Order: sequence, then C-alpha cells, then structure tokens
Amino acid sequence: MKLQISIDMIRTHQALIMVDEIFDIVDIVEVGTPMIVREGMLPVIELRKQFPDITILADVKIMDGGEIEATDAFEAGADIVTVLALAEDETIQGVVKTAKKFGKETMADMICVKDIEQRALELESMDIDYICIHTAVDAQSSGKSPYDDLAKISPILTKSKAALAGGVNIQSIPLFKNLQPAVVVVGGALTSKADIREAVLEMLEELK
Amino acid sequence: MKLQISIDMIRTHQALIMVDEIFDIVDIVEVGTPMIVREGMLPVIELRKQFPDITILADVKIMDGGEIEATDAFEAGADIVTVLALAEDETIQGVVKTAKKFGKETMADMICVKDIEQRALELESMDIDYICIHTAVDAQSSGKSPYDDLAKISPILTKSKAALAGGVNIQSIPLFKNLQPAVVVVGGALTSKADIREAVLEMLEELK
Repeated sequence: MKLQISIDMIRTHQALIMVDEIFDIVDIVEVGTPMIVREGMLPVIELRKQFPDITILADVKIMDGGEIEATDAFEAGADIVTVLALAEDETIQGVVKTAKKFGKETMADMICVKDIEQRALELESMDIDYICIHTAVDAQSSGKSPYDDLAKISPILTKSKAALAGGVNIQSIPLFKNLQPAVVVVGGALTSKADIREAVLEMLEELK
Repeated sequence: MKLQISIDMIRTHQALIMVDEIFDIVDIVEVGTPMIVREGMLPVIELRKQFPDITILADVKIMDGGEIEATDAFEAGADIVTVLALAEDETIQGVVKTAKKFGKETMADMICVKDIEQRALELESMDIDYICIHTAVDAQSSGKSPYDDLAKISPILTKSKAALAGGVNIQSIPLFKNLQPAVVVVGGALTSKADIREAVLEMLEELK
C-alpha cells in the first residue's frame, strides 16, 4: 500500500516547509482541492520546482472540460490528476487521453457515486489508473464509511488500482488492511500532528 | 433574464481587460472553473478590486468541504458561488450556510444529475438561490441539450430561480426564451468575438 499525504488547509509557502519534512518517506504528495481553489496550480508548480522527484497528485476533481483542466495540471507538474467518477464519460476520456499524452496518470474520485461496482468497471474500461473510494469530509460526521465500498471494488478490478480516502487514520487501518488498496490517502490525521515526520513513520509501520 | 458572461480560458490580467469592456452591461461576471484551477481565487480578488460594484460568480463547482471552499470564494470577493448538485446534502447545506453568513448567494450546477425534478426540489428546500441546468462542454458534441431539462424545472420551482448554461449562443435563444430562466450563462459565444461589447449588446437585444 502506497501512502498519499493530502495537503489541504495551508498556503504554498507552508506546504513547501511541510513537504520538506516528509517528501522522502511518502509515496504521493496530494495538493488538495481547497488549496487549488485558493491558489490554483501555484502549489503544484512550486512543489515540483523544489522537489523534482516526488510524485504529485493534483486533486482537481475535474467535472467538465477534461482535456483543458488535465493539461493545466500536468503542465504545472502534476503526475496524477483526479476526475470525478460522476462526470460524463466524455470528460473521463478527455482526462485519460491527456494523461497518456503526457505519460502521466489518472485517479477517479468515487465521491457520491451510487452504483459503485458498475461505475468502477466502466472507469476501468476507460483506462483510469486509480479508482478512489472516497467518503466526503462533509458526510463523515453522519457515519458514512468507505470500507464496504472498497470491499465491493477490490475483488472486481483487474487493471485499475483501488485507492481509499476520507477520514483514514491510524486507528482505522485494521478496518481495511486486508483489502490492500494500492493507495491510502491520509490528510488531517498526519498534517495536524506537531511532528508530521514521526506521524508518517508511525503510519507506514501500521500499513506494513 | 439576466446575462452571465463566463470567462474561462484566459489569465487574470486578460480578464481585467475583457471585463473592462463589458462590466457595465452584463449582470454577472463568472470566473470559470478552468481559471480557478489555474489561478485559484486571484482572478476573483483582482476583479473585485478593479470593479467593486459588479456581481462576480466563482464557478468553484464545490463537491466537498462546502464551508471551507465557499468561505474562500466569498472572502476573495465572490457574490455567488457554485456547488455541484450531485454533492452530498451536507456539502450543499455547508455552502448555503456560508453564503447566508456572508449575505451572499449560491448556485447549484445540475451537471450530470439524472433525476432533474427531484434534485431541483431538494435543492430548493435547502435554500439554494439558483439552480443551473448545465450540459457539460464535453457532452455538447454528443448532442445533449439543456432545454428539455430547463422545461422540467421552470414550472416547479417556487423559490429558487432557474439558470441555463452550456453552449448558449444567439441562435439558441429562441429555444428557451419562452421558459424565461432567471439567468442565462454565455461563454465562448461572447468571449470569442473580436468585439465583445458589440456581441454582448446584440445578445441583450435578443434576450429582451
């Protein structure tokens, strides 16, 4: 399982300092949607400059204009761009086509998808690299959990890889460890810690 | 019918020049999603500074983190922020709550919604100000059209107002004029014109 750290609630200059502490031990650095809404591709551009070898995911959550928005993210330096699984197939295909042109990857965010299995198979047939089961932050307090959905797609995917996001912390690892998603996305459970490097190391130990 | 001009494919400094030509004759200036993906809230901030009295819509297409992302947009100077109709109700409610706190407005983007009537009524009950029927750019070439959907919601809305977006141009006005959406969103059909002020005046004439 790869560890993706999601950086959300800070500005670019703070992200550079945070990533400097952990870039050598995480697998993927995610520039989260709230950062993009606030600063656009600036954090991606600056992280790419300062850390040329890390894997950067830009959580653009593309819903339309697939080629245009994916192009912007890849040109800024992203290695993986996200598209909403609920988008039109034409949008998904535009994102995948653009990723292939750049030699980069795509992640579909399954947030709010109702028929998880069917859409996962459709996304796989459209050559999406990662399919991310994702419980909305806004829905976590109402008790929604992503593990059942992960259990639905893990056995049926043959080419696309499963990812898991939404409220993951060190206590929740036992709830999905047996499902072995290819990528585990962790945000606040790491970024809120005073010693973020220590928190990442501890999580990596639990993910083993 | 109010005219909302959608500005998408240019940078902030170009947007300032473009808006300078038409700010006194359009009702709403939209900072489109591709601009936000590229530059974040910078275009909203700069437009607000240069044109203190215009109405700015930030097409954030919020899918999660409703309060956080709406707060950023309103603090940047937006008057209206968009949320995806497909988002969790908790997200919609977070956006509406934030708008009320700021004394601002919300638009729900109906892109990719299947059951148009039911979701429109749910959005209305959550106090969304505008419900925007929207055919994805990526789906326009496959012949999808928004007018049937607009005809479905126009008669049933009592509080929320209907808006229309996606491929609207001067030729298509007769196709929806009888439905009188409160807001008509026009992008490329205006912004691609050499004389954008002339194009806006011509469109305003047709919308009368």
